[in-house]
Amino acid sequence: MLNVALLGYGRIGQMHAENLFNHSKFNLLYVYDKNYKLALKSKNKFKNKVITNYKIALNDKKVDIIFIASPTPTHIKFIEESVFFNKIVFCEKPLDLNISKVKACIKKLSKKNPKIQLGFNRRYDPGHFQLKKDLKKKKIGILQKIIITSRDPAPPPINYLKESGGLFKDMMIHDFDLCRFYLENDEIIELSATASSFTNFYKKIKDHELASVTMKSRKGVICVITNSRQSSYGYDQRVELFGSKGMLISGNQNTNQTEIYNSSSTSSKKPYLNFFIERYKDAYKNQLNDLAKFAKKNIKPRSVFLDGYKALELAENANSSFKLKKVIKTS
Amino acid sequence: MLNVALLGYGRIGQMHAENLFNHSKFNLLYVYDKNYKLALKSKNKFKNKVITNYKIALNDKKVDIIFIASPTPTHIKFIEESVFFNKIVFCEKPLDLNISKVKACIKKLSKKNPKIQLGFNRRYDPGHFQLKKDLKKKKIGILQKIIITSRDPAPPPINYLKESGGLFKDMMIHDFDLCRFYLENDEIIELSATASSFTNFYKKIKDHELASVTMKSRKGVICVITNSRQSSYGYDQRVELFGSKGMLISGNQNTNQTEIYNSSSTSSKKPYLNFFIERYKDAYKNQLNDLAKFAKKNIKPRSVFLDGYKALELAENANSSFKLKKVIKTS
Amino acid sequence: MLNVALLGYGRIGQMHAENLFNHSKFNLLYVYDKNYKLALKSKNKFKNKVITNYKIALNDKKVDIIFIASPTPTHIKFIEESVFFNKIVFCEKPLDLNISKVKACIKKLSKKNPKIQLGFNRRYDPGHFQLKKDLKKKKIGILQKIIITSRDPAPPPINYLKESGGLFKDMMIHDFDLCRFYLENDEIIELSATASSFTNFYKKIKDHELASVTMKSRKGVICVITNSRQSSYGYDQRVELFGSKGMLISGNQNTNQTEIYNSSSTSSKKPYLNFFIERYKDAYKNQLNDLAKFAKKNIKPRSVFLDGYKALELAENANSSFKLKKVIKTS
Amino acid sequence: MLNVALLGYGRIGQMHAENLFNHSKFNLLYVYDKNYKLALKSKNKFKNKVITNYKIALNDKKVDIIFIASPTPTHIKFIEESVFFNKIVFCEKPLDLNISKVKACIKKLSKKNPKIQLGFNRRYDPGHFQLKKDLKKKKIGILQKIIITSRDPAPPPINYLKESGGLFKDMMIHDFDLCRFYLENDEIIELSATASSFTNFYKKIKDHELASVTMKSRKGVICVITNSRQSSYGYDQRVELFGSKGMLISGNQNTNQTEIYNSSSTSSKKPYLNFFIERYKDAYKNQLNDLAKFAKKNIKPRSVFLDGYKALELAENANSSFKLKKVIKTS
Repeated sequence: MLNVALLGYGRIGQMHAENLFNHSKFNLLYVYDKNYKLALKSKNKFKNKVITNYKIALNDKKVDIIFIASPTPTHIKFIEESVFFNKIVFCEKPLDLNISKVKACIKKLSKKNPKIQLGFNRRYDPGHFQLKKDLKKKKIGILQKIIITSRDPAPPPINYLKESGGLFKDMMIHDFDLCRFYLENDEIIELSATASSFTNFYKKIKDHELASVTMKSRKGVICVITNSRQSSYGYDQRVELFGSKGMLISGNQNTNQTEIYNSSSTSSKKPYLNFFIERYKDAYKNQLNDLAKFAKKNIKPRSVFLDGYKALELAENANSSFKLKKVIKTS
Repeated sequence: MLNVALLGYGRIGQMHAENLFNHSKFNLLYVYDKNYKLALKSKNKFKNKVITNYKIALNDKKVDIIFIASPTPTHIKFIEESVFFNKIVFCEKPLDLNISKVKACIKKLSKKNPKIQLGFNRRYDPGHFQLKKDLKKKKIGILQKIIITSRDPAPPPINYLKESGGLFKDMMIHDFDLCRFYLENDEIIELSATASSFTNFYKKIKDHELASVTMKSRKGVICVITNSRQSSYGYDQRVELFGSKGMLISGNQNTNQTEIYNSSSTSSKKPYLNFFIERYKDAYKNQLNDLAKFAKKNIKPRSVFLDGYKALELAENANSSFKLKKVIKTS
Repeated sequence: MLNVALLGYGRIGQMHAENLFNHSKFNLLYVYDKNYKLALKSKNKFKNKVITNYKIALNDKKVDIIFIASPTPTHIKFIEESVFFNKIVFCEKPLDLNISKVKACIKKLSKKNPKIQLGFNRRYDPGHFQLKKDLKKKKIGILQKIIITSRDPAPPPINYLKESGGLFKDMMIHDFDLCRFYLENDEIIELSATASSFTNFYKKIKDHELASVTMKSRKGVICVITNSRQSSYGYDQRVELFGSKGMLISGNQNTNQTEIYNSSSTSSKKPYLNFFIERYKDAYKNQLNDLAKFAKKNIKPRSVFLDGYKALELAENANSSFKLKKVIKTS
Repeated sequence: MLNVALLGYGRIGQMHAENLFNHSKFNLLYVYDKNYKLALKSKNKFKNKVITNYKIALNDKKVDIIFIASPTPTHIKFIEESVFFNKIVFCEKPLDLNISKVKACIKKLSKKNPKIQLGFNRRYDPGHFQLKKDLKKKKIGILQKIIITSRDPAPPPINYLKESGGLFKDMMIHDFDLCRFYLENDEIIELSATASSFTNFYKKIKDHELASVTMKSRKGVICVITNSRQSSYGYDQRVELFGSKGMLISGNQNTNQTEIYNSSSTSSKKPYLNFFIERYKDAYKNQLNDLAKFAKKNIKPRSVFLDGYKALELAENANSSFKLKKVIKTS
C-alpha cells in the first residue's frame, strides 16, 4: 500500500480522496486543506488523519506520495517542498499561470530527477487513449490532422474566472496537451489564435468566451482546437484524428443510452454527462493506476511535469498570437 | 427500346409512368385506366397514347410489356390475358386476395411458361438488397434470425382499408416476401400470428392495427415480423439479420442528414422519409432495371409470380393462426 | 448502517460484496459460502467475518439483511428461514426452477408479510428505467408494443447449462419480467413460444440456442422477446417501446465512445460491454439504493418476490406453448 | 418552358444536361462544346441541337438562358457576352482565378443589372440548407461558430490540379461561400490560413494537400474550415453551426442505410457517397428550381455573381495569410 497525503480538499480534492480511498493500492493517510473545517469532513468518510500543517505529511517518512489538489498558485511551492523531502508527487493542472515560475522550478529541481505526475486527466480517458493506441497501431496510416472540440457547459463562477489566467491557460491547456499527446515525438512549430466574446462580461475581465487555435507540427500535422465557455447542450468533448488511411473519433458520452422518436424528431439522445467529474470519472481512476505503477515500478505515467510546462508555453504563445495578430513560431 | 403499356394510372401507376418515361430502356407507349379522364393526364407529360380499351395494347404487336398497376381484383385477369397474347408481364403486389384464384391461374398458365415479374419493391431497395449480398458473402456466418419491423405512418383511407384484405394480406405480405427473399432455398415450416387494435375502428372492419408473426424455417431460422398501421414518427422500415458470426441491419432513411443539439436532447435527427414512394424511390427504379434484363436477356428478376403466391399463402396462414390460436404448419 | 449477511460468494456474490462494501448505507458483516475457502477470500478485501454456518447470521440480531446470491436450488430455503428470523431479504433471480416450490413458499409466508426484494437487475438499469419514466410521463402516448432483444455473448459452461432450467427459465426470465415492468397494471393474457438450435449440443441437453416469444396483454399490447445464447458481436440488450405518439429505445453500451473510419466502413464503433457484470454495473448499484430504502423506510423496491413468481410462471407457459405448438392463455 | 443553351459538355455539363432535360420548366435547346464530337453525344439522349458556334445561341431570341459549364477561363467572357445579349445566365463556380478580371467584369456589367446565378451547389443541398432555415428560426439562438470539414476522396488529375488555382481557390472556395451563406448580413473581418503537404507532389506544383482557415466576423462569429485533398474513407462534407442555445450539424451521406456488427466492431456503416455528383445530386436539381424562379418571377437565387466574387476574394486573402504568416484584415 502506498501512503498518500492529499493537499487540498475542494471539489476536485474530494473526488480524488474518494478514488484514492477505493483504490486497492493506496492508503489515504492525511488530508490537508487551508480551510481546516472543510478538511475535517474527510475524516468520517475515509478514516484518514486531518492535519493543520502540510509539513506534518512531508516530515512523515511513511508518506510515499504528496497529492496536490490545492489552488493553482500553491502548486509550484508544494512540488518543490515535496521533492525536497523525496516524495513522489501528483499535481493537478495547471502547474502555474506564470511560466517564469515554472522555468525556475525546472532549474531548481533539475538535479533531483524528481518523480512528478501531472493531472492531465484527458490522457487517461478510455476513449481519448483508445485513439492513441489505434494511432500507434497505424490504423489510420500517417497522422495528418488533429481536431479537438472542447466546450464547457457553463462558465465557472466569476471569482474563479478572474483568477483563472484566461481561456488559453485555464481551459485550452487541456487541448494543447492532448495535441502533444497524439503528436508524440513530433513538435509544434507554429501557432495562430483567435478569440471572441458575445457578452461584455468576458471583455471586462479581459477574457474570451470562444477561441480557436490552429497549430502546425514539424512533420506537417495541422491541429485545430476550438473552445467555448458555454454550451447549451452540455459538456462537449470530441477528438478527431485524421490520417492518410482513415479517421478516428473519440466522442461524447450521453447520460444514458436511450433514444426517443416522435413526430418532430427521430433518434433523439439524452444530454451529455455533465461535468468533468462525471465525464472523466474513469479517467480519474485510470490516472491512479499510472500513479501506483510510477511509485512502485518507476513506470513513467502518461503525463509528467514537462508536459505541464509545454502546454503552458503553448497557451502563452496563443495569447501572443491573439494580441499580435500573427502566426507565432513556437520552436 | 421496350414498348410498354401501363394498365392503371392511380398513385402508383403515375409513379411507374414517370420512371418508365425516364428510363433509357423503356418507351411508354400506352396508358390505360378505367377512368379515362385520369389516364388522359399522362399524355401531356409522357407523350404516350391513351387508350379506352386495354385490348388495344394486347393486340398491338409492338407492345413488349404489359405493366399492371390497376386495382388488385383485376390483376389475375390482366395477367392471364397478357400471357395469352405472349406479352411479358410486370404486376404490382398482391396478385389477388383470393388464393384459389391464384392457384387456378397457376394451373391455367402452367404450360405457357410465362414471364411475370412481381412488384415486391422491397427486394429492390439498395439497403435491403445489400443485406442479401452480405448474407451470400457469409459476412454473418449462418443465418439464424430475421427480424423485420414495418410500420406505416398512417392507415390508408377507410375505403381502401375495407377492400384491402386485411393487414396480413395487404401490409405484411411485403414482410412475408422479404423473409422468403433472405431464406432463399430454406423454407418456412411453421407460423404463429397475433394481432390487436387500440381503436374500435379496426375491430368494426374486422382488421387489426398491430400484428406480429413468428415463423420458423426448416433449417431453424426464426423470423419475427412486427407491423403497425400507424407510426407517429413516420414510415419505419427495418430489417435485422442475425447470424452465427454477426448481425446486419438495414435501417431507415431520414428526410436529410442534419441533427440538432440543445438543452433537452442531443443528436436529434429529422423525421423519416414519408411514404413508400419516397422511401423506396430507388427500389422502384431498380425494379425496372430487372424488368429490362428480364425482357431482353431472359434474366430472372428478383421477384416473380410464384413469390406473389407464396407470400399470399403465408398471409392466409397468419389469418388462420390468429383465429385458431395455434401454430400452423406451413409445409 | 444496515448489517448484511451475504450467502453465496461465487461470481455474482463477489460483485455484490464489493458493491455492499463501497455503499455508504451498508455494512458487510458476514459472508457465507458452502465452499469455505472461497468465502475466506472476502475477508481480506472487505474486513467482514466469514462463517461456516449461515445460521450464525440468522441468529445474530445485529443482522438486518440476508442477501442471497447462492445457487438457485437454495433460494427458497434461505428465503423461508430468513423470513422466519424476521430478516429483510434480498434474493438473486430466479426464485427456483420448480414453480410448485415457489407457490408453496408463497402460501407458507403469506401471513408473515415478508420484505423480499428480487434481483431483477435490469429494472434498475439507468437506460431501461428511463424508458419506464418516459412511459409514465406519456412521452409516447399509449403503449402498444414492447420489443426486447436479449443475446448473451456466449453460452454458460455446460455444467451450468444442464442445471439452468432451460432458456426460458434461465435467460428469458429477465425479459418476461421487463415486459411486466413496463406493462405495470396491465396483464399478459396470451403467450406463444418458438425456439430452435443450430448445433446438436442444445438438442442433447433438451435446451434451445435461440427462442422467441410473443405475448399479448389485456389492453392489447403486443410483446415480442427474442433471445440467443450466443452473439458474435457481444452482449446485446435492447428494449423498444412503441406507443401511439412515439417510440422509446434503450440501447447497447459500447466499450468506449470511439469510432473508426476507413476505406471499407464508416462510423465503426467498439464492441459492446461484455458481460452482465460490466453492462449492468450501475444497475447492480442502483439495486442497493432500493434495498436501503426498503429496509429503512419500507419503500417498496422495483422488484419483489411476486415478480419472481410471475416471471417464472410465464417461463413455464413458454415451455408449454413450445411443446404444444399453441397459444397459451396465461390468465 | 425556358429555353436553355448549355455551354460546355464535360462531366459537369453532362450532368446539368440531364437535369435540365428532366426538369419540367426547362427545354434544353442547344448544347455547345469546343469539342464538337463530345457535344454530339448529347443529341441522341436529349433531342437538343448541337451547335459549332456558341454565338448561334446568343443570337437566337428563343433562348432565355445561357448555362455556362465550360472551363473556368471562359466563364467571364461567356458571362459578358450573354449579358450583352440580354440573356439570363447560370455560371458554374469559380467565376475566374484572376480576381482583377472579375472586378473588371463587375464594372463592365454594372449598368446592365444582369441576372446571373452562380453554381455554388452546396447552398442548395437539402441538409446544408436545412441548417440555414433552422438558424433563421433561431433554433440555436445566436450563431457563434461555423465549423466546416470538407475532404475530397482523392485529388483531381494532375493536369487539372496544375490549372486549378490552388486549394484555396479551387476547393475551399465552396467553404468560404458556405460561411458567407450562414453569416448572412454579418461580414468576415479577419482571416488566418495554414496549409501543409505530406507528399512532395503538392510542393512541386506549389499547392497544398491539407489546409485550415480561421476567420472572424464583425459580430464575433469564429469560422473554422478544414480541407483535405484526399480522404481514405470517402467524400467528407460536414457543417457544424454552434449557437448560444444549441448546435446544428449537417452530416455525411452513406452509400446506403445498412450496418454490420461482428466480433471486431459494431454499427459499422457503408462508405460515403462518392463523389460530388452523387453527394450533391439533389442540390444540383434544387439549383434549377431557383433558376426557373429567377428567370420567370425574378426571385433572387441563393447564390449570385457577387457571391462568386466575395468567395474568390477570401481565397486570395487565404493565400496572402499563408505566405505572410499573419492575420489578414478582410474588410
